[in-house]
This record gives sequence, structure tokens and C-alpha cells, in this order.
Amino acid sequence: MSPSATPYRHFHDQLAALNARLLAMSERAEALVELSVEALLAKDTHKAQAVIDADAELDVMELELEAAALELLALQQPMARDLRFIVSVIKVTSDLERVGDHAVNIAQAALRLISQRTNIVPDPEIEDMARRARSMLGDSINAFLRADGVLARDVCSRDDQVDSLHESVFRILLTHMMADPRTINPSLEYLLVSRNLERVADLATNISEDAVFLAEGKNIKHGGGDPARVDTFSG
Amino acid sequence: MSPSATPYRHFHDQLAALNARLLAMSERAEALVELSVEALLAKDTHKAQAVIDADAELDVMELELEAAALELLALQQPMARDLRFIVSVIKVTSDLERVGDHAVNIAQAALRLISQRTNIVPDPEIEDMARRARSMLGDSINAFLRADGVLARDVCSRDDQVDSLHESVFRILLTHMMADPRTINPSLEYLLVSRNLERVADLATNISEDAVFLAEGKNIKHGGGDPARVDTFSG
Repeated sequence: MSPSATPYRHFHDQLAALNARLLAMSERAEALVELSVEALLAKDTHKAQAVIDADAELDVMELELEAAALELLALQQPMARDLRFIVSVIKVTSDLERVGDHAVNIAQAALRLISQRTNIVPDPEIEDMARRARSMLGDSINAFLRADGVLARDVCSRDDQVDSLHESVFRILLTHMMADPRTINPSLEYLLVSRNLERVADLATNISEDAVFLAEGKNIKHGGGDPARVDTFSG
Repeated sequence: MSPSATPYRHFHDQLAALNARLLAMSERAEALVELSVEALLAKDTHKAQAVIDADAELDVMELELEAAALELLALQQPMARDLRFIVSVIKVTSDLERVGDHAVNIAQAALRLISQRTNIVPDPEIEDMARRARSMLGDSINAFLRADGVLARDVCSRDDQVDSLHESVFRILLTHMMADPRTINPSLEYLLVSRNLERVADLATNISEDAVFLAEGKNIKHGGGDPARVDTFSG
């Protein structure tokens, strides 16, 4: 319960170090999403396996970041805005770890598709979703680290486009499956990929909501429209 | 940076109040999962709609709990174990809010199945999964609030059974879909239900991992086996 003996200057350095770690973790998470989609599109077993292997790094990064944040809370007992920032870092870190899990899910789907030797190619919507989800993720971390409410709100507004793309992918795949039952198995894999990309965009939106809170002190979670995350096959 | 002026006794009361709120939220989340599965099995539109309407309550509970936890951190500047507990409460709260989202997803699938007027009934595995996921959730919160490492580890060990049930459901549904393309649409809805139940069990496992950390100071996250959450259609 005693105030910290560490000078404020030191605290600032520690905060900066936390920022740098968070940025490194988000870049790694983003790179894994990119690599998983490359593995899928190029049917590249090595890339898929590389994603699966690299996920453990993100897990370690999460544990280290969380430990660093808790240490900062315990030793520095920060007030108000710094307190909120450090607690938010713990939440964002957990979101980034989930992004890694989604990349692994995509890589595993890629491996199964490769072993199925299917001729069915993914719809271009999937590449479009991957591009958008990754850019949302990068922008959400920048918005969070700079407490940039405008950029954060922009990220949130882009989530609907990814949701629409996911619904398009669902409808296209459903048509394939109905027309030819032999396509059911690979179609389900592409559906899984699409849903995982849609989740990455959701997580970027979560991070952006935390960024808006830091920037404006306003909680926009559960703000408008559908109370739950979109998770429909048929819209 | 000054130590709190509030007496320790007061802090203890505030911690107890936080516990009570968390328990209330978890009971509400568990009830919504139960109601959503009832809606699905009984094809009950009213129950499904009730789940969708009630989710907003959980969202409010999350915001209030998080605000209470942050206030406690700011005013009391707790040390070591209390600090870790309060930060964990924020994480558990976010997990419970996600449980509510999964209940909503199941309720929405129930509504779509009702509107499809399908004759296909869900496999008994789905009811079994729902029962197991709910009991894991209840036990995980009890383990967390009592810092009961034994119960928490027991919950973690039960996750594999739910994963296996999910894989069984997938295989059964795939067989249906292959045999008769008219079953594709309802089968996808049941697959979605199964996956959402599997996620509820994952979230109960997350909460139990936090409980083990509180009880034993040991981090068992990403402990053994598969680094990512199970998310496969085909195993």
C-alpha cells in the first residue's frame, strides 16, 4: 500500500517498453494471419506448418506482456489514465493471442485442403477479407498506442464490410455444396477460413473500442445494432 | 501515487461485493446458454427471442463489473494476490460476456431452424454438450471465486470430452449433408450450435486456467498439446 519509490521518469520508460512489446506482438500476429492465408492460397504445406509452429511464440509474448503489465501495476500503482492503459494492454494482449489462434485454424484448414487434393479454389472474397482484416488489425494497434480515437472509430466502421464479405462467402459456398455434394468437405474448410478472418476483424474492432475509451473516455462497446458478434452461416 | 485512505475492512467489503457481482453475472450467462438450448430443442421462438433480448443485460453487467474493478485498483492500489485477483476478474468478465454472445448465436440459429420448418432433429450429442459446457462454466466460476485449484484443473480436463463430442457432431452432420443436399442448410445450423457450445467449454477452461493461477501461482495456459483452441470441422 506504500507509494512507489521509483521515480516517474523510470515509470515512463517502463510504459514505453510495454508499448514496444505490444507493437512487436501485434506485428507478429498480423504476420501469422498473412502467412496462413498465403499457405492457403499457394497450397504451401511449409508455410502452414510455420504458422502452427510460430503460434507458441505469441503465447509466450502474451504471458510476458501480462507479467510486465502486472508488475507495473504492482510496483508503480499508476493512477487514472495510466492505470486504464495498462489494464487495457492486458486485454489487447489476450485479443492478439486469439488472433494467433485464428491464424493457426486457417493454417490447419489449409493443410486439410492440401491433403484432400481438391480442385476447388477459394473465392476472391477470402483474399479481400484477409487484406481488410489485417489492415484493421494494424490500424487498431496504432490507434490504441497513439490513443487516436478517429482512427479507432474508422476501424470499427470497417467491420461491417468484412461481415458482408463473410456472408457472401457463405452464400457462394452453400450454392456449391447444394449443387455438388463432393464439394461439401472443401467448402466447409473455406467456410471455416472465412469465419476465422471475420473473427480477426472482430478482435481488431475490440482493440479499437479500447482505443476509443483511452482516447475519449467513452465506452462504445455494445454500442449500436446487433448485441452479439456476427456468427451466422445464413445471415 | 498516495496510498489509499480507505481502511482495509472497507476494501474487503468491496472485494466481497465484486465476488457477488461476478457470481451473479456467471449465473446469468449460464442461464442464457440453458435457455438457448431449450429454445433449440423445443423450437420455441419466445425463448430464443428472450435470450437475444437478455444479452444486453450481460453487456451492462460486464461494463459495471469492469468499472468496479478499475475503481478498486485505482482507490485501493492492492498488492500481489489481490491485484492479480482483480485483474483476473476483468478477464473473466469479458469471457462471460462472450458466453452470452454464444447463447445469442445459438438462439439465432434456433430461430432460423424454426423458420426453415425442417424435420431434422438435433443429435443427442448436442444436448450432452450443452449439459457439459454449462456444468464446466458453473464449476469454473466456483473454482475461481474459491481459488480452488483442484476443481479448476478438473474443469480443464473435461474440455477434451466436449471437443470429442463436437467432432462426432461434425461427422454425423457431414454424413447427412453428403447423403441428402436438402439437409445442408439445417445441418450447418446445428454445426454452428455445436461449435458455439464447444466455445463455451473453451471459455470455462480459460476461467479455470485463471483460477489455477490464483490458487497455485502457476500459469497452465498453453500448457500441453495443441497450442490453439480446437476449431476444426474435420478433426
